[in-house]
Amino acid sequence: MAFGEFDLIARWFTRPGRESERIALGVGDDCALVRPTPGMQLAVSTDMLVEGRHFLSSVPPQRLGHKALAVNLSDLAACGAAPLAFTLALSLPRVDPAFLDGFAHGLLALADAHGIELIGGDTTAGPLNICITVFGEVPPDQALLRSGARAGDDLWVSHPDGGGLGDARLALEAFRGHVSLDADAFEAVRARMELPTPRNALGLALRGVATSAIDLSDGLLGDLQHVLARSSVGATLDADALPLSAVLAAQAVTLRRECTLAGGDDYELLFSAAPARVAAVQAAAAQAGCAIARIGRVDAAPGLRVVDARGRHVATPWAAFDHFKI
Amino acid sequence: MAFGEFDLIARWFTRPGRESERIALGVGDDCALVRPTPGMQLAVSTDMLVEGRHFLSSVPPQRLGHKALAVNLSDLAACGAAPLAFTLALSLPRVDPAFLDGFAHGLLALADAHGIELIGGDTTAGPLNICITVFGEVPPDQALLRSGARAGDDLWVSHPDGGGLGDARLALEAFRGHVSLDADAFEAVRARMELPTPRNALGLALRGVATSAIDLSDGLLGDLQHVLARSSVGATLDADALPLSAVLAAQAVTLRRECTLAGGDDYELLFSAAPARVAAVQAAAAQAGCAIARIGRVDAAPGLRVVDARGRHVATPWAAFDHFKI
Repeated sequence: MAFGEFDLIARWFTRPGRESERIALGVGDDCALVRPTPGMQLAVSTDMLVEGRHFLSSVPPQRLGHKALAVNLSDLAACGAAPLAFTLALSLPRVDPAFLDGFAHGLLALADAHGIELIGGDTTAGPLNICITVFGEVPPDQALLRSGARAGDDLWVSHPDGGGLGDARLALEAFRGHVSLDADAFEAVRARMELPTPRNALGLALRGVATSAIDLSDGLLGDLQHVLARSSVGATLDADALPLSAVLAAQAVTLRRECTLAGGDDYELLFSAAPARVAAVQAAAAQAGCAIARIGRVDAAPGLRVVDARGRHVATPWAAFDHFKI
Repeated sequence: MAFGEFDLIARWFTRPGRESERIALGVGDDCALVRPTPGMQLAVSTDMLVEGRHFLSSVPPQRLGHKALAVNLSDLAACGAAPLAFTLALSLPRVDPAFLDGFAHGLLALADAHGIELIGGDTTAGPLNICITVFGEVPPDQALLRSGARAGDDLWVSHPDGGGLGDARLALEAFRGHVSLDADAFEAVRARMELPTPRNALGLALRGVATSAIDLSDGLLGDLQHVLARSSVGATLDADALPLSAVLAAQAVTLRRECTLAGGDDYELLFSAAPARVAAVQAAAAQAGCAIARIGRVDAAPGLRVVDARGRHVATPWAAFDHFKI
């Protein structure tokens, strides 16, 4: 059975009767119509995912649908914005019902878990490309920005219970054949690469507590550098304080350091807060049901210093992830 | 000189100090922050452009930048929403400064002409793909929708002064070698394909006047069918009333009909209005400085009938444009 563009939208991406107090008009007209909450600021972010760059052809479609929305929700989390709605633009080599069944299921299940609606989009034939734009709301002057870190602040990172940073990168190294993992270990880190958990509850709980925040997408060092540059500060990072999964903890120290410090694809929150707010930070994490670890401090002196638990310099020879430099 | 992803954003797509009353935070954080006007509805639309589908590799980069934003502005025009801001996600095979100079110039010149800001985006390496999401504002219950056409309404279409529908399709046929045009004629229709003019002033002026509107992107017949389906009505279209450029008027009647009725890529507004509102329609067009033509009427009987000036049936053997059916 051949599906056309409009059949595709109707079958996989239209859910009639989903209009609400906030969504005046969803999929099906030239524009969607949203009713923002009066007085709130609108937070907007867009991410484009390309095969071979942001995901491998081996990813199950349901996980790809989840991840495409998760990386966008993660940007709202980093701003402390409450998710509202999203649009989806999709370029597909062909209409493959099995792919679209899985993709739409993974995408819409995560949307439902966060109470947000797919309000519009575009589909076209072409190389596989997924572009999602996400909208959220945040009260004026309460958004978490990259520019708010202050000298003396603690640096914190979120992580999965019993897990840590760098697992997604370890999975990528395993897919590339650079490292060998047993089946259970591979499945565990593969799930971290393919099914990231956006930290939206934590982002909301950190409003008024964190001084800055960013989500970890390109690797801890590179993402932290963005915060330092926008905040005009430096930092010292304790490489041994970074949370680790059991799988990554079992790897050689060089690989461990590369995965945690320069891995990318973590989608955890990196944030700063005044030391006097430790209790408030811990209460926010408890409220969000999310594990956090203190991993360093913000310095007045420019530059980023990475040390181990004994205060010795740790070499960081890796470039931050850059789509045009790999 | 090699440019990385962040150099690219900084050099071509960041314009510091462009924050305003409406844009609280632009490019450079996890999210942009917009201050919607209290009480207004937010109109949102997204369009993805793929090489070989929406543009040819021969398009000058400056025109491509213009067109990528124009097709999105056209969706806001069709809803009667005032443009506010947009995001850009861009997948590029490589960082080509000459391409990016032209693309950014064409894109931002049109943005400036409409007083809207590029507030965020994403860049990645991959097959050329441009995804823009555009935001506008419209007062509650004043958006022009596809669902408002009523039996007895006149059908109208906008067009360039001295021009008409179908020129973009004629240019495509010339590029494909299916038709031969002299140099001046080719340049004229090529400009209509590569530099569409979104009808935003007309869309705003038609609030409270038009009963329905849609922008012509996939071809008049297909786009009109969307209006008829959403409005549960039929229509009669006068093929001889469609506005024509001199270049297209000189072509054989079959080609002329195919280009105007099924051409696509026109980005004119097709709208309906009660016959009693003819003066208001003409005043709106005059206020917007935009030519319009009356091309048919809405019928209570379902179905779309195409006739010529003498009322004879006109065959319409062309399928509506569908990205997955060509």
